[in-house]
Amino acid sequence: MKKIPHRIYLSEDQMPAQWYNMRADMKSLPDPIINPATNQPAVEEDLYPVFCKELAHQEMDNTTRYVPIPEEIQEFYKMYRPSPLIRAYNLEKALDTPARIYYKFEGNNTSGSHKLNSAVAQAYYAKKQNLKGVTTETGAGQWGTALAEACSFFHLPLTVYMVKCSYEQKPFRKSVIQTFDADIVPSPSTTTQVGRKILEENPGTTGSLGCAISEAVEKAVSTEGYRYVLGSVLNQVLLHQSIIGEESLLAMQMIDEYPDIIVGCAGGGSNLGGLIAPFMRDKLTGAANPRIIAVEPASCPSMTRGRYAYDFCDTGKVTPLAKMYTLGCDFIPSANHAGGLRYHGMSPILSKLYHDGYMEAVSAEQTKIFETAVTFAKQETILPAPESAHAIYGAVQEALKCKESGEAKTILFGLTGTGYFDMVAYQAYMDKTMTDYIPTDEELEASFAKLPKIPGIQ
Amino acid sequence: MKKIPHRIYLSEDQMPAQWYNMRADMKSLPDPIINPATNQPAVEEDLYPVFCKELAHQEMDNTTRYVPIPEEIQEFYKMYRPSPLIRAYNLEKALDTPARIYYKFEGNNTSGSHKLNSAVAQAYYAKKQNLKGVTTETGAGQWGTALAEACSFFHLPLTVYMVKCSYEQKPFRKSVIQTFDADIVPSPSTTTQVGRKILEENPGTTGSLGCAISEAVEKAVSTEGYRYVLGSVLNQVLLHQSIIGEESLLAMQMIDEYPDIIVGCAGGGSNLGGLIAPFMRDKLTGAANPRIIAVEPASCPSMTRGRYAYDFCDTGKVTPLAKMYTLGCDFIPSANHAGGLRYHGMSPILSKLYHDGYMEAVSAEQTKIFETAVTFAKQETILPAPESAHAIYGAVQEALKCKESGEAKTILFGLTGTGYFDMVAYQAYMDKTMTDYIPTDEELEASFAKLPKIPGIQ
Repeated sequence: MKKIPHRIYLSEDQMPAQWYNMRADMKSLPDPIINPATNQPAVEEDLYPVFCKELAHQEMDNTTRYVPIPEEIQEFYKMYRPSPLIRAYNLEKALDTPARIYYKFEGNNTSGSHKLNSAVAQAYYAKKQNLKGVTTETGAGQWGTALAEACSFFHLPLTVYMVKCSYEQKPFRKSVIQTFDADIVPSPSTTTQVGRKILEENPGTTGSLGCAISEAVEKAVSTEGYRYVLGSVLNQVLLHQSIIGEESLLAMQMIDEYPDIIVGCAGGGSNLGGLIAPFMRDKLTGAANPRIIAVEPASCPSMTRGRYAYDFCDTGKVTPLAKMYTLGCDFIPSANHAGGLRYHGMSPILSKLYHDGYMEAVSAEQTKIFETAVTFAKQETILPAPESAHAIYGAVQEALKCKESGEAKTILFGLTGTGYFDMVAYQAYMDKTMTDYIPTDEELEASFAKLPKIPGIQ
Repeated sequence: MKKIPHRIYLSEDQMPAQWYNMRADMKSLPDPIINPATNQPAVEEDLYPVFCKELAHQEMDNTTRYVPIPEEIQEFYKMYRPSPLIRAYNLEKALDTPARIYYKFEGNNTSGSHKLNSAVAQAYYAKKQNLKGVTTETGAGQWGTALAEACSFFHLPLTVYMVKCSYEQKPFRKSVIQTFDADIVPSPSTTTQVGRKILEENPGTTGSLGCAISEAVEKAVSTEGYRYVLGSVLNQVLLHQSIIGEESLLAMQMIDEYPDIIVGCAGGGSNLGGLIAPFMRDKLTGAANPRIIAVEPASCPSMTRGRYAYDFCDTGKVTPLAKMYTLGCDFIPSANHAGGLRYHGMSPILSKLYHDGYMEAVSAEQTKIFETAVTFAKQETILPAPESAHAIYGAVQEALKCKESGEAKTILFGLTGTGYFDMVAYQAYMDKTMTDYIPTDEELEASFAKLPKIPGIQ
């Protein structure tokens, strides 16, 4: 048998020309989002003040199975895609496992992660609608960087509300975003009503993601020709990210492989939902039945310990209500360095699939995550982002089980990006100053008690 | 005609299995290195206390045309190679040039640059000789990172002397190097005689590359079973880096292209020498005659304004003397952010080829370099290292000449790596606090006057 190469690349011609919408194959759909002003299910038009029309349509479209990727987006993708599917020969050897481990690496672009896949789509549709600009928020900074790159390419003005503590602690992230001409505002700021109110009440605050979202939304809906964009959680984001999974499937077909197990890291669900899309299609249609495993931080365990309930998507409670696994929108995750996974909720699509038994979820403490990240970096020449390292951890656990059982399973995981801007966390791990935090049951119960009440629904 | 894809990848099978030694085809060889203790040409054995035997041999071997790449090194290469040859469609469009621009991108590994190509070779040979460890110095940090990755993989202890000001100003670079288990010492340090002497004389010094080299060499020759390794300038390094050019040539052949012009950035010559290797072979053998252009910083213009003379390879004057283009080993380059190009000399092989008219050299001021870097990042989704941006600059100048003349030339340049650890420099460019510096003729003359005197030679 011919040896499988280390890196498997599709040719440009083989790149998927359409995104896949999992909802079209779901026997039971996610519950509709609810407009908190009316307590009624939202319709597409309700979203127009916030999202551009095409994206509002994608958000609500439960039936179109395949969405053609516009030519301009395909052309942009070709600058950094297809991304490689990599056989982790050296990791396998280090683990002494009979398992065959593959990872889909999304870090080969300046944003350093898969976030660019949706950023370019959202920037393109906004530009096509002749919008004057968009706003967003960023915490860890990967989404802000990706969107800045995409908006710069399409000459679309962008304002990024960056959580003030990140803005101050991550000056290099800020510089990258500014290199791509985005206007960057430390949040809370005096540029919005909600920001001014928060600053008045608490002048020394270093901000939160919830506050940054609230400011970005307020700025978008109050500025003529502006809309708001978001890098995770949303149905449209999972749609765009399906290119990750579709490419993975095609690359595995090229080498006559199919994964027994697919592992992804889980924050809002953008990478996980994209990676698993075609494999979930196989599960939903009965074509195959691989195991799908989400790995989340033990400090922010929305699937493994959260409630499946309607909740706000933000801490500021300005968004519609979504039915999802949530820790409660008032839950403040501890200072976990995997910033991209510090989200109280989970994509409604993934929440529904998890609820219906189509996938599993596990959680891990961050010191274990970083231990795995360092092992991986030494074996595979890629320093992973802390978020990505959750997926590596899950894959390693399964590979070690294979070692026990002697089974040569095929494992695929998503390596969302690189950790070049996360060296403070790596240093803390090496200095042994990194600590773990697991919320107590009492804390979670107190947070669940504050979940919104919706007459007739919950 | 079929459209050329954006990214051209060789398959793993197509990867070159041998390095190419330009010296074997040079009609006139570089002058021999001289042992400053005897003022006589050095022989291979003279290098054994400093380099491991196989590398000492490669350093002195002027006749072997092709050196087989050991299986273990090939296996390591396969983790991140073949690197992509990328057609810069969007840059071409932005420049409105009829030129076809290609770049060979070497940044897809955690060291962020091509340095890993030689680091893995040097670590491998050291391990094969059962050495107990190696020492090196690092300024900007790319070489230190690459070597740490390679040594970690082969379980070879490594001590990196990092220029103290870099150690303090680039804590994230330090963290990456430490992630790969290297022992990292801010230089000057109390771990060496030369370090202690410098600290006594000048307790507040923040160090220099020259001092770090001296410390690393002293540590290596005074520690049993240790040797010293270096990431540029040396003949062995150019040999290892020839894989960049050989891959580029093969990838261009796949799409029926051959470069009219090849552009590389020039510091010590490690990337330039590797990129141009097979094209220089064509020039030396008369098979083809592309233009080859080196781009160096105006602040450190060794080829464009230096002397072709024997000089020490380090500021501490502990190394052999090499005949090369040099600004004088006492020349202190201004605080140019392109740290990797702040070297007073130039690879002896490249110096000789330049002296004999086989290549051209130009220089550019750093504000222009960063202007180009930002344009490139916006068009091509890769944020280049400042060093790499010199090559982009050179390629852009040639592409603009094509626009004037209407000629559709094929331009190939080397994109050595990414700029994720150079955001202080990018920020300075954006804040307009970045300044340019060009040494005066008087400064250079004063430096040349201090070039070593060698009886009967110079």
